[in-house]
Parts: sequence; structure tokens; C-alpha cells
Amino acid sequence: MKVAIVGVTGYSGTVLWQLLSQHPNVTEINIYTTQADLEAVAQQFDWQTKQTVRVLPFDAGQIMADNDVAFFATPAGVTGELAETFMANHFPIIDLSGDLRLQDPKAYQKWYHRAAEVSRETLSYATYGLTEFTATTTDYIANPGCYATATLMGLAPLVQERLIDLDSVIVDAKSGVTGAGKKLSQATHYVDVDENFSLYKLNQHQHIPEIMQQLKQWAPDMGPIQFTTGLLPVKRGLMATIYAKVTADSADVNEIIAAAFQATYMDKPFVKILANDMPDLRLVVGSNMTAIGWSYNPVTHIVTIVSVIDNLMKGAAGQAVQNFNQYFGFDETAGLAQLPLMI
Amino acid sequence: MKVAIVGVTGYSGTVLWQLLSQHPNVTEINIYTTQADLEAVAQQFDWQTKQTVRVLPFDAGQIMADNDVAFFATPAGVTGELAETFMANHFPIIDLSGDLRLQDPKAYQKWYHRAAEVSRETLSYATYGLTEFTATTTDYIANPGCYATATLMGLAPLVQERLIDLDSVIVDAKSGVTGAGKKLSQATHYVDVDENFSLYKLNQHQHIPEIMQQLKQWAPDMGPIQFTTGLLPVKRGLMATIYAKVTADSADVNEIIAAAFQATYMDKPFVKILANDMPDLRLVVGSNMTAIGWSYNPVTHIVTIVSVIDNLMKGAAGQAVQNFNQYFGFDETAGLAQLPLMI
Amino acid sequence: MKVAIVGVTGYSGTVLWQLLSQHPNVTEINIYTTQADLEAVAQQFDWQTKQTVRVLPFDAGQIMADNDVAFFATPAGVTGELAETFMANHFPIIDLSGDLRLQDPKAYQKWYHRAAEVSRETLSYATYGLTEFTATTTDYIANPGCYATATLMGLAPLVQERLIDLDSVIVDAKSGVTGAGKKLSQATHYVDVDENFSLYKLNQHQHIPEIMQQLKQWAPDMGPIQFTTGLLPVKRGLMATIYAKVTADSADVNEIIAAAFQATYMDKPFVKILANDMPDLRLVVGSNMTAIGWSYNPVTHIVTIVSVIDNLMKGAAGQAVQNFNQYFGFDETAGLAQLPLMI
Amino acid sequence: MKVAIVGVTGYSGTVLWQLLSQHPNVTEINIYTTQADLEAVAQQFDWQTKQTVRVLPFDAGQIMADNDVAFFATPAGVTGELAETFMANHFPIIDLSGDLRLQDPKAYQKWYHRAAEVSRETLSYATYGLTEFTATTTDYIANPGCYATATLMGLAPLVQERLIDLDSVIVDAKSGVTGAGKKLSQATHYVDVDENFSLYKLNQHQHIPEIMQQLKQWAPDMGPIQFTTGLLPVKRGLMATIYAKVTADSADVNEIIAAAFQATYMDKPFVKILANDMPDLRLVVGSNMTAIGWSYNPVTHIVTIVSVIDNLMKGAAGQAVQNFNQYFGFDETAGLAQLPLMI
Repeated sequence: MKVAIVGVTGYSGTVLWQLLSQHPNVTEINIYTTQADLEAVAQQFDWQTKQTVRVLPFDAGQIMADNDVAFFATPAGVTGELAETFMANHFPIIDLSGDLRLQDPKAYQKWYHRAAEVSRETLSYATYGLTEFTATTTDYIANPGCYATATLMGLAPLVQERLIDLDSVIVDAKSGVTGAGKKLSQATHYVDVDENFSLYKLNQHQHIPEIMQQLKQWAPDMGPIQFTTGLLPVKRGLMATIYAKVTADSADVNEIIAAAFQATYMDKPFVKILANDMPDLRLVVGSNMTAIGWSYNPVTHIVTIVSVIDNLMKGAAGQAVQNFNQYFGFDETAGLAQLPLMI
Repeated sequence: MKVAIVGVTGYSGTVLWQLLSQHPNVTEINIYTTQADLEAVAQQFDWQTKQTVRVLPFDAGQIMADNDVAFFATPAGVTGELAETFMANHFPIIDLSGDLRLQDPKAYQKWYHRAAEVSRETLSYATYGLTEFTATTTDYIANPGCYATATLMGLAPLVQERLIDLDSVIVDAKSGVTGAGKKLSQATHYVDVDENFSLYKLNQHQHIPEIMQQLKQWAPDMGPIQFTTGLLPVKRGLMATIYAKVTADSADVNEIIAAAFQATYMDKPFVKILANDMPDLRLVVGSNMTAIGWSYNPVTHIVTIVSVIDNLMKGAAGQAVQNFNQYFGFDETAGLAQLPLMI
Repeated sequence: MKVAIVGVTGYSGTVLWQLLSQHPNVTEINIYTTQADLEAVAQQFDWQTKQTVRVLPFDAGQIMADNDVAFFATPAGVTGELAETFMANHFPIIDLSGDLRLQDPKAYQKWYHRAAEVSRETLSYATYGLTEFTATTTDYIANPGCYATATLMGLAPLVQERLIDLDSVIVDAKSGVTGAGKKLSQATHYVDVDENFSLYKLNQHQHIPEIMQQLKQWAPDMGPIQFTTGLLPVKRGLMATIYAKVTADSADVNEIIAAAFQATYMDKPFVKILANDMPDLRLVVGSNMTAIGWSYNPVTHIVTIVSVIDNLMKGAAGQAVQNFNQYFGFDETAGLAQLPLMI
Repeated sequence: MKVAIVGVTGYSGTVLWQLLSQHPNVTEINIYTTQADLEAVAQQFDWQTKQTVRVLPFDAGQIMADNDVAFFATPAGVTGELAETFMANHFPIIDLSGDLRLQDPKAYQKWYHRAAEVSRETLSYATYGLTEFTATTTDYIANPGCYATATLMGLAPLVQERLIDLDSVIVDAKSGVTGAGKKLSQATHYVDVDENFSLYKLNQHQHIPEIMQQLKQWAPDMGPIQFTTGLLPVKRGLMATIYAKVTADSADVNEIIAAAFQATYMDKPFVKILANDMPDLRLVVGSNMTAIGWSYNPVTHIVTIVSVIDNLMKGAAGQAVQNFNQYFGFDETAGLAQLPLMI
């Protein structure tokens, strides 16, 4: 299997290259860039490997001729512009950007603060690749956002089985700094982040609409969610702490919730449900795992669900490889054996 | 003014000593300990000061004879046992522990997992010293807990003026590691905290009952709150992110909330209300300030209030000095001029 | 290949288990402990894997009967006591402790502050497994210490080719906190390490004698070294900054040094020599790589060599697996493909 | 005393403002900037104080008319250009930049990589304000660099009394990230610094020439020093670990060194000599203290001196205030009472 990666200078692209370079079904990786200085892009691999990495200029035709699939780890706007070329040729794309996640171009415009380049029809051909819930797939896989992945994984059983009040969901999510990307900004200067914790994009984060879109597919009468995003002084790791009012009013609430999580995730290799504990970031960072814990408070009737992922793995490159495995029928865990670092 | 400090080996006691050693109205600090090795206790000051610090054995009579006031920065249980001796003599105590914060001994027993040593009558003589809201004070001041201080400061105007649904409050609070104390534990080992974020004591934290007690004084029909506590990989700083349903359904919600915060805190030297921004830890760490921001979401009708403090300053030693200033009629800011570190 | 791991509760043992659990030539891992509560030891694996891990009571005979090799990741003193049983049976041992690294029992006693349990004769059967320099091996492989590995890798070409004054070596080394182990101590409390940098065991570190022993094998007239060890506020990673007076006084000093490093490490898969740059921890953490940079100062005639490793990988578990690969003739990189994390 | 601060947007300027705003002898602070948007500069104070801060456009005449002294916390090049205007008027300047530290314009050009604007004659009027060693002062005080301060404080007694081989000095210094300034760069991005340690400007740091200049005043035959600078993943704090060959060959080396440090620093309020211990960053961060420890190795005859400061306090703003106190004859500790944070 020959794979193309377009965009390797960001964090997701780098991790994607690392994963694919050790994937048992990948025989060749071709790296493409729209940057003029190919040499400079190649140099960033110098310190990771003793082998020389070749970087090629971006060329859609050449990509399709020389590869079996292309991963895009590019900023917002790039794949939106290019999508139709590849789709017209039924060439499989796994897109780590948000360009084709939303089926409604107006929502894209509103949340991404930029013009939508893709028609509603084209958007309808894309698969939202939340791997644990993908039934059938198309040639264009929109890899979910990191906040969306953690939140949806934590809410799925409760929303699907309507165990919670669909108008009561509050998400207090926090991410490590790699989630903010490699671009320089005051907000990611070491001195601003270290020994600090700050909130940003309160109820404004661009992952909110893809969460709502997916929740509404599971429960069309799903109400709006409250969504807080915070910046933790760590590199990697994302926790979504989710609060919701439980509707069931029986003594068995705990058993009902436990059963729902078990039924949904029992045979999923990358999901771990904690029985009596809350996961911390360490439990997953470095791996493709999602770890989920929960606690029901009988006084307030609120269940607190805690869902953690490594934002660069399950939240980006890892899930992209999982989508790759699913699309081509490889073992779901191929190339993703890496255990959490923990220490 | 001669002051006694009992308990100086913990973080709060150390910071308290630092603050009092620079307080303009303090002429003498006497340090008392129940530990046998006075020398060992004295040595911990070696690296802070070029002066020698004298440590004395604990003796209630001697403390009252040689001082005008005593601060207790001791673990749970100590002041409970000693309170009545000092109270019987009307000797002023500022107690940083939780022993006399709760008026109900049964609540103490439930939340502190230890027998209550103090009678309901004795408890009723203590003042809960949330300084911005203390009307009259007694000789025994129970300095509030760190989570309680941040949460109550953020909720006060909205609960007092009933701008929110009193059954809808969810608090997602996070603290730095000094909040967990100096005692060695796996949970505070560097390797367990660094690059991590974890939750603990979900709905079990011992500051919950003092929050409820105070809220019910402001609004007797206050409902139970949902309370999450998390451990941030930072030393100092505490953020309470508070969610509540707004009851007012007018276009002026933003103005109403802003007016409530302004009215409550306008003339308070240690409170800063942010107009259009959310405070981060950096805004307060190192200082005695509470910084509060808020954001109303018209879609969900939820207001998010963010209240930050330095858990060792406003959350412990700083507020203790503020209580000291109030009790003796000194300038409220005396000894507390220290600005936030920021960098 | 069936492998035994004795001692899995420390950091090295945990990482060793992670590496071996993904090693292509390992079919079975048996975990042994001397702790009474087998269940408690097994539970620490719960959060790393969805599979159940079986922990067995320590039994030398059983280990030899059921395995092809045993790794010991135990504290100082354990393998010293047990070594002869396994050696008498020519059963291969890879020992991550320092018990059999020193050929002189008196040196062990002096630097480890404990009685030497092993005779000089037994010690002479052990191989000091600095993998890049192992010519022939024995059944007992003493895996080198982390500081020793980084320092020796950085000094080897210059000492072997006598390019430096053998009496001029100063090593300023720094390590992450995992190097100090999992045991609770004030020195590893989060609040003591965070935002701090401290020195410890100045010229007293127990890795000094194994460094001297190896250097003297390369150059019998090697003089004593100055050795500083510091504690960095990071989890993993170790840098040895080495200063030495260059003896050559020609204009070609740079070329001579470069040639020496190239000749020694050219074909070594886990060593990367930087041409014009100094490595940082990030370049290696998470991987088994050693990265080495150097800079010659013509004004002082001092060369600064910078050698970095991940103390838990090349400095412990990674090199143990490398020794395992070498001993059994597997591909040297088997089970060690993991690239540096970098981000 | 009315004081002007020119340049307040960097870290040193901010801390300087904080210190002066609490200085007992300062009645008025006027802030000047060359930036067009005065409002934007003023806003950075919003979050530190509840009072409004007024920012004025830079005007040399106005500064001299309205103030008694001016502090410059500006980038390299600014004071070089302006120095003569103020000097001609004998208006006192305390300059935190490096522009007038070196008496040789060629050295400035070489190490600062920019043209020297100041004549050798003008340079000779400036005082190098290493406060513990200033005999007489002039109207123009060049506040020393952070690395220079820590290194010179550690070396002074040994060089002045020639207890060490003057050709043997190696300095391995490390600083927190505030030392690198507020400007955005890849090197100070959180993801590049966190969990990392890296070296930079090896033997190239611009503080080297001012160290050499001062050392040569103390010992004209002082030889070149080896100077390494590293970036610690902390905000504040700087440690210089200094190695030098001791010339004395007596059994009393320890006593001789101890006596030298005691004699030099006994009555200095901001220097603490540790008898049997090595200082860590925590011992000084937040305060204006220099803490110095040392250890003599009889095997190598090398003494290791460890000198730590807070790079923004004794290494910048704190020493600037100390220079201010000395120049105007205030108590040396005025405005600098702040104890180390420690926790």
C-alpha cells in the first residue's frame, strides 16, 4: 500500500508520518507539500530518522498516479478547495482538517469564519469517520476533531439510548497545547502557558457544530450543548468532562448506565471503560485509546462522564490510521499498537 | 501587634509566616509547634531568611500571655480540640483549618471522616470569615477553604439576587498541587502530576458543605450543587468554572449580571471583575486577588462564571491576613500589597 | 521466546514490559514478584491493556523451567543475592540493577552504601552490556546505568583515540525525575520539582565507578572525572554535557573529532551524530536513540560534547531489550522501532 | 522621588514597574514608550492593578523635566543611541540593556552583532552596576546581565583572592524561559520547551564579554572561560554551575574557600552562602537573593560553585532597584523585601 501525506509540518502530520512509517501494510510513504522549499520540509525529518525522507511538490494527478490513498493534514481551507478533484476520480482521501465534516456549508462559514468552498452535494459524499460508529464509508473520510471525538465517545450510549435529558448537556473540556497547533502566538508562548490554566473560545469552538450534527443523527430532538474549552499546561491529552441530567429515576441508574457503556464499547479495541474510577490523561497519552469513566450523583441526578484521549492520536493521526485500516479492511489495530506512555 | 502562628510546616503556614513577616502592623511573630524537634522546624526558615527564627513548644497559656492573636495553620482535628480553651478566654483565633467552619457537627463528621470534637454551641460562636461578606465578627474566625472561597465569590451576586435557577448549579473546579498539601502521596509524585490532569473526590470534597451552608444563608431554598475537583499540573492557582441556568428571560441579561457583579464588588480592593474576558490563573497567582469573568449563552440560557484565586493566598494565608486586618481594624490591604506574579 | 520479568512495579520494569509485549520474537511474558499481594501487582497493568496480566510468585527454579531468559528490574541488592543460582545453571539474565556492574566488590560497597553479596569471581563472569561496545557476551548481562550510558557514549571515541587530556574530563549531567525512581520522597514531590532545578549527589553518584571502570578499559591511564548530577523538571530524558581539553593542536581539530564520532557510530542504528547542532532531550525521548553533538572552542581548547538519551529507554529498558536482541541474535532493532515523541 | 520607566512591555520592564510601584521612596512612576499606541501599552497593566496607569510618548526633555531618574528596560540599541543626551545633562540613568556595559565598542559589535553607537569615551563614564562590588558610581549605571550576575557573584572571592587556576574556569549555566524574552519564536513555543532541556549560544552568549571584562579587573591575567547556556522548562530562575581547578594544595582548602565567601558576602543583605548544601532555584525565585553553595573534590582538585538567582530580579529588575537604592542612598533593601516564593 502506497500512501501520500499532504501537509507534514504541523503536529498531526508529523505524528501521522510516524505512525504510517511503522504500519505493517504501508510499503511506501510519499510526502507532498505546497511549500516552495522542499528541502526545508525534508529537514524536519532529519532528527527523527537516520533515513533520508523525500518531499515532493503537491500535484493532484501525480498523487493519484503514485499512491493508493492520500492523507491531508493541512489547515482549514485546503481540502475544501481540492476535494472535488479527488472525489471525481473516486480516489480515497482521509482528511484531518474540518473542511468536509459539516454537511451544511452555512455552518462551516459561521464556525470557521471563512467561505465554504464545497457544495452541499459534495459534502454529502463525505463520511464523518468517528471510527467506533462508522457503518458504511465513502471515498472521502472526514476525520473528526479532537474535542468532538472525546465528547461524542462519552455521550454516545447515553444519547442513543436516551438515558439523559437531551437539553441538559454541559461539556467542560480541556486540551494540551498541541491542540492549538504549531503556529506561533502569544497564547502558546511558554511563559503564558506554564503554571497557568486558561479558557478560550467559550461556546465558540469550531468542533461544536460537528458534535451537534452527530448527536442529532443519534437523537433528532437533541438540544444545544454548553461547551467550554480550556488550555492545560501539558503537551498532549484532552479531557471532556460532561454533565447531564439522568432521566431514569430508578434505583438501578448505575447499572443502566454501566450496561449502556458496556454494550456500546465491549468489543472496541481502542475504548476502555473504567468501572469505578475516573481516567486521567496519562491513561491514554501516547496511545490511540479512549478511556471513559462516569459517576452518578443521586442528590442532583446528574451523571458526570469523563472521556479522555490523546488529541494527536485518537483526536487526529491515530484515528486517521484507524479510518485507513477500516477503509482497506486491515486489522483495526494495525500500526496503532503503541501503549500509553504513562511515565 | 504580636502574633502567634501554630503550624508552620505546611504550605499555608509558610506563606502566612511570609506575609506576616512583612506586615506593617506586626512587630513580633512567635512560632509554636507540637513537634518535639523545635530545631528541625526552625531550620525550614533558614533558606528564606538570613535571620534566625525562634520556634517554641505549643502552650495555650503561653500563647495567650505573649500574643495578641493566634493563627492556626494546622491539620483537621487540632483546633477542634483546642478551640474552647481560647474561646473561653476571648482570645482571638484565626483558624485556617476546617474544624469550625461547619455549624453542624454531623456534617463535619460526614465530610471530614472524623469525629466532631466541638459542640454545636461552640460552633455557633465562630465567624465564617469570607472577608468580602463578613458583617460582624467574633473572636473565632474560621478562614474559608480555597474551593469554597472561589466558588462563593463567583456565585454570591447571582444567588443573592436570585438571577439563576437555584437547582441548576454545576461547579467544575481545578486546583494546583499545593492545594493537596505537602504530605507525600503517590498522587503528588512529580511523575504522576506532570503532563497530566486528573479528577479526585468528585462530589465528595470537604469544602462542599461550607459552600452549601453559606449559599443557604444567602438563599434558603438553594438546591444541591454538582461539584468536581481536578488537579492541575501547576503549583498554585485555583479556578472554579461555574454553570447555572439564568432565570431572567430578557434581552438585558448581560446588563443585569454585570450590574450585580459591579454592585457587589465595586469597592472591594481584592476583587477584579473582567468586563469581556475570562480570567486565567496568572492574573492572580502570587496575590490576594479574586478575578471573576462571566459569559452568558443565549442559546442554552446558561451563564458560565469563572472565578480564580491563588489557593495559598485568597484561598488560605492571604484571606487569613485579610481577616486579621478586618478584626483589628487595620487597612484591609495591609501586608497584602503583593501583585500577581504573571511572569 | 518466553521471557520472565522480575520486578515490574518500578518505572524501568513497566517500560520493559511495554517493550517486550510488542517484541516480534517474544511469545510469552511471565511476570514474577516477591511481593505477597500478586493481585495488587497485576492491577497496575489494568490501565495499560485490556488483557489480563498474570503475576506469579518469585521462584528461581520455576523461572528457569518456564522461560528462556529473565530480566531483573529490581532494586539494588536483589540480583546480587540471586545471581549465582542462575549463573550456576547458565540461565541467561539481563539485570537492570547495578549489582553486577562493578568488578570490584569494594567499589560496590563504597558507592552503593551496602554490603557486596557477590564474589569477585562471580562478578568477572558478568558482561557490562553497553551494547554499542560489547564484543563477546556472557550469560549474565549487567545493563549499564543511565548516566553511565550517556556519558560513555559521548566520551568513547575521544578516549579510545586519546584525542583529549585524560585528566581533564568534567561531566555536568541532568536527568528527568523518572531517574530518581517511583519511591515517594520530598525530593520528588511535585511542588519541590516543578519550576525548579536542583543538584544532588555531586561527585557521589553510584554510576561514577562503572563509568571509570569502562573508561579505564579503553584507556588504562584515564584520570578521575568530575561528575555533577542535576534534577530537571521533566519526566524522561537525560543529558550529559561533557567538557574535556583537546590535546591535538592542529587546525583540523574539528575534522579529527568528527571523523572519530563517525567511525565509531556510523553503522549503529541507535546512535545519531549531529553535524552542526546540539541535541535536546526531545530528539530522543520515547525512543532508544542516543544523540550526540559537539563543539570545539579554539580559544579554550575545550570540546563540549552533548550526549542525550531517554533514561528509561537507552538508559534502562530499551538497552535491556537491545542486549536481549544481541544475545539471542535477533535484529538489533527488534521491538525498539518506537520513534522519538518530539511532540 | 519621581521615576521614569522607558520600555514596559518586556518581562524586565513589567517586574520593574511592579517593584517600583511598591517602593517606599517612589512617589510617582511615569511610563514612556516609543510605540504609537499608548492605549495598548497602558492596557497591559489592566490586569495587574485596579488603578489606571498613564503611558506617555517618549520625549527625552520631558523625562528629564518630570523625573529624578530614568530606568530603561529597552532592547539592545535603544540606550546606545540615547545615552549621550542624558549624560550631557547629568541626568541619572539605570539601563537594563547591554548597550553601555562593555567599555570596548568593538567587543559590543562582535557579541551583539550590531554597530556600536557609543564612543569609547562615553562608555568610560558608565558604571557597571554589580551592586555588591560597586565602589563609586556615575550618573549612568549599566545594570549587569543575568548570566553575568550569577557567574560573577560565584567567582568573585575565588578570582579576587586567586584561589583558583585562572585558566581553568568552565561555566555550565541554565536559565528559565523569561531570560529569552517575550518575543515569539519557535524556541519559546510551549511545545518546544516543555519536557525538554536544550543548549543555545554555546560560547556565543553576549554576557560572556562583560563577565571577562569584570574578571580581568579583579585579576588582569584572567584566562578565557568556557561558557554554556541552557534553557530550562521553568519561567524564572538561573543557575550557574562553575568548575575551576583549586591552586591551594593544603588540607585546609575547604576552610580557605569558606572564609573567602564569608569575607566577601557576610554583610550583604541579598547574598546567602550555604555551608553544606547546594542551592536550587526555589531558594531565590521571586526574591532579589543570590544563593551560593560550593563543593571541593579532593580527587580532581576541582571546586564546583553553584550560584543561583531569579533572572528577572537580581538578574534584571531587582538589581536595577538595588542600584537605584545605592545611587540615591536609600536603604539597600527598600522595595525589595519580597521573600522567595519557594512554593
